Order: sequence, then structure tokens, then C-alpha cells
Amino acid sequence: MKVVVNGLGEMGASLALAIKNSRPNVEIIGVDRNAQTLKMAESMGLASRTTTDLTEVASIADVIILSTPIQVIIQTLSRLARLPLKSGVLITDTGSTKVQVMQAAQPLIERHVNFVGGHAMAGTQKAGISALNKHLYDGVPYFLVGQNGQAIQKASELLTGIGVKLTHIDAHQHDQMMAYLSDLPHVVSAALVNSTRQILNDIPAMPQFAAGGFRDTTRIGGADPQMWTDILLTNRDATLAALRNYQRNLAGLIEALDRQQSDDVYAFFEASKKLRQKF
Amino acid sequence: MKVVVNGLGEMGASLALAIKNSRPNVEIIGVDRNAQTLKMAESMGLASRTTTDLTEVASIADVIILSTPIQVIIQTLSRLARLPLKSGVLITDTGSTKVQVMQAAQPLIERHVNFVGGHAMAGTQKAGISALNKHLYDGVPYFLVGQNGQAIQKASELLTGIGVKLTHIDAHQHDQMMAYLSDLPHVVSAALVNSTRQILNDIPAMPQFAAGGFRDTTRIGGADPQMWTDILLTNRDATLAALRNYQRNLAGLIEALDRQQSDDVYAFFEASKKLRQKF
Repeated sequence: MKVVVNGLGEMGASLALAIKNSRPNVEIIGVDRNAQTLKMAESMGLASRTTTDLTEVASIADVIILSTPIQVIIQTLSRLARLPLKSGVLITDTGSTKVQVMQAAQPLIERHVNFVGGHAMAGTQKAGISALNKHLYDGVPYFLVGQNGQAIQKASELLTGIGVKLTHIDAHQHDQMMAYLSDLPHVVSAALVNSTRQILNDIPAMPQFAAGGFRDTTRIGGADPQMWTDILLTNRDATLAALRNYQRNLAGLIEALDRQQSDDVYAFFEASKKLRQKF
Repeated sequence: MKVVVNGLGEMGASLALAIKNSRPNVEIIGVDRNAQTLKMAESMGLASRTTTDLTEVASIADVIILSTPIQVIIQTLSRLARLPLKSGVLITDTGSTKVQVMQAAQPLIERHVNFVGGHAMAGTQKAGISALNKHLYDGVPYFLVGQNGQAIQKASELLTGIGVKLTHIDAHQHDQMMAYLSDLPHVVSAALVNSTRQILNDIPAMPQFAAGGFRDTTRIGGADPQMWTDILLTNRDATLAALRNYQRNLAGLIEALDRQQSDDVYAFFEASKKLRQKF
């Protein structure tokens, strides 16, 4: 079985490796715009063949996994809809938002190509093939999105072997949830980092005094800028709604603190402590 | 040497244990308003004597460590200034903000009592004596605040043995830094948790899909409400300034996203990625 993985970053390369390790008969064909990445993928035995041009290998693929930045996934779905494809090919993606991906996949779906959207709750602040981790998908939730039963079944068979926990979900519900579980935390964390710019100038020694609380809360503030720009822009409505909801919560605390309303400050932290236990 | 520890929560109990372990000749006298806590402290051999009333034991102490909530520290400093104390006694505290503590210690300082403010960059979201951890202070930064050379020297001798990294710092600079390293992250994290209330009602299964990013960013959102209410109120000006600075950063990102200014969204995440590397 020939599995073409387009985009050998942390997610794509780790997924390729997990699939390869779980199925001896799988041949990974690596596609990436970066020739250095392809060289690495070949030299470490991850891919048996590589190319910078998906068009070259799309027609021989049994499975095509799109794991580039999400804006590129969207463009690639349009391109694939005009390319010759093997009968029965499964096409899926690993993009972090799903409404726009499912819209972009519409021409493929109309061609009766087996498409299912995919998204794993995995990944770190690292990027690139050097972040390859064969355990990245162990036990993580993996969403499948779409109505094509055959595509869902094929994807489930492929992915069950790598140890993920599959969940079928509606694209809108997925994106709304991601706005809170993923987009909002990344913005909140990055804004916290950015707000230290001035005081870091005043007290350059400050970083050595940062403890676990600051470090944990800002860890994902070091995430890949291009990836998160893409994710936010492709999940704009849901993320904006989450951000404005967050802003209101924050403004409430600021007002309470400003007015020294200790009961309201306490209620803010008490509500959070209780709610956090659900996670 | 008799060391009175007033407040046997996570910080106080762990500090008492670390001091006891580092100095065989130390006798810990535990003070707490909670009789259950005192019973535990005695039964585990942490304290050789306990009482709910600091007044009973203040006069026999060689060292008094105040590790109650910070509002209580402030009240206790006023009380201690009117009590008979052993000549040469060292009084210190573990409160997270220092400007108000140093003000409250002024009557003691005027009595020529050896007082030095203290604050360790340690502690978790847990609370109470059950969060006791003999390694809590291993290698953590520990601030000493004040001008009394003898007090600083006595405190340094006592604390060097428990493995902390001592730093002498001005109270105002300390509190400003804490506003960014500690207060702001706690508010940011709790506001993030609180903003999920509605969507948790809509999608009750959501918590099982939370990955490391959400969990790390919200970990300190589960912190003790009373402690953080106290800390914010005793560091109100610096925290409000930090929160408003943070609000502006957040508003900038929201506007950029709303207007689909992808360059500005990118710049926001890129600035954070670069700045985060300093920590």
C-alpha cells in the first residue's frame, strides 16, 4: 500500500513513521517543498521515495495524507480535484480546523473520491522533520470529519493501528471546540509573553526567576507563528467569539480588582478552580 | 534553635521540613488555626510542639517564619510588634508580595527587631499540609527583601542549607516582577478556564479532547482562590498595570484577526516565539 504524505513536518513525519511501524506492507512516499527535509526522510528510511511535487505521485497513491500548513491543505484539495487519482484512493488531512477544509474538499467529494477530514490532538511547540517522534500519536484523540462511510472506515483501519482514539465529529462543533481548547490558549499564552517586553528591558535578570506557573502558562507561546496564523485565519469566527468571551471574563476581574471588590476577585478564582477540575 | 512556623500550608510545612532536615539541632514549633493540621504536624514528627496561638510561643522563638495567607501575615506583623520577643530573634515571612509586608513590618523594624521579607518561587496549585513536599525548595529562587544586614545574614545562613538560590531585591522591583511572573499568569489562566463555561455546557465531552497546550496553560487556573485573592489585593497597582498591558496586547491581536490582517497576526506570534526563548 502506497501512502503519500504531503508535508513532512512534526505531524506529517511522525504520522508517516507511526503508520510505517504499524504496517509492514506500507510504502511511504514523502512530499515536501524542502529538499533537505526529503533527504532526511530518505536517509532515515522513513520514505522509500520522495518528491517536491505532489502531482508526480498523486495518481499512484492508495492513501494521500495532507499535513502541510492548513492554507496549503486547502489549495492542495482544489488541485487534487483536477488530478487523475487511483480508484478507491483515500484522501485525508491533518489540519487543525475543519469547516474550511471540508468546504475545500467539496469538489473531491462531488467526484466521489473517498475524503475524510482528520485532526489529532497532538503536536508540540516544535516544528519540522527534526521534531519527528514515533510516540507523538500514542493514545491521543483523533477526530474524523465527514459523511463518507467508506472513507471513514478506511481511515479508521489505517489509524487504529497507530494507537489513536478515534472520534467522529461534526466540522462546526470541532472548530468551535478547537477555538477554546487550542486557538484561545495559544493567543492567551502568546499575549502573556508579549506583555513582558517592557519589564524585560527594565529587569533583564527576570527570566531566571520565572517558576513553573509562568513557564507552563507560556510554553505554547513559543509555537510556530506561520502555523498559528493559518489556524486562526481558517477558524476566524469561532476564535473571535472565544476571544471576546475571554476578554469579558478578564475585564470582569480587572474591574473587581480595581474596585477592591475582594468577593468578586475570590469568585473569579473559585469558579476557575471548580471548572478546572473537569479537565 | 527554636523555629516557630506560623501557617503549616504547602509553603510553611515544606519549609519547616526542609529546615529540620538540614539542621539536626532545630526544633520546629508549629502554629496553625487548624487543629487537624497541628495534629498531622505532630504525628508525622514535623513539629515537636504545636499551638493555635502564636502569642504563646512567640517569646521563646529564635526564628519566626510567617507563612499564612498574606493578609494574615500583615496583621501578624502588627501583633508581633506589641509582643515580648527574644533578643536577636529573626522574623521573616513567605508572602508573595513584599511592598505591603515591608510596610507592615515597619513597627518591628523600628523596634530594631531583625526582620527580613522572604519569598520563594516555589509552590504548586495544591494547598494545605497534605501538599507537604520536602523537595519543594530544591534549587528555587528565594528573594530576601529589606535593609537589616544582620537579619539578611541570619536568614541566609538558615536558608542556604535548604538549597534555595538567594537573591536580595528591592520590594517594589520584586512586586512589579511578580505581577508579570506570577499574578498575571494566574489571572490569564483562570480567565481561560472561566471562558469555557458555556461551551462545556454545550459539549460536555470536551474535556477528554483537551491536549497538553490547554492543560499546561490552565494548570494554575486551579490554584487556591483565597491565596490569589490576597496576593492580587496586596499587589494591586502592579498587577492592574500588568493586566492592562496584557489587555492591550490581546486587543491588538483580536483587531488584526477581525480585519484578517495576517501579517499582524503573524507578527504577534513571531514576537512571542522570540521573546519566549529568553525564559
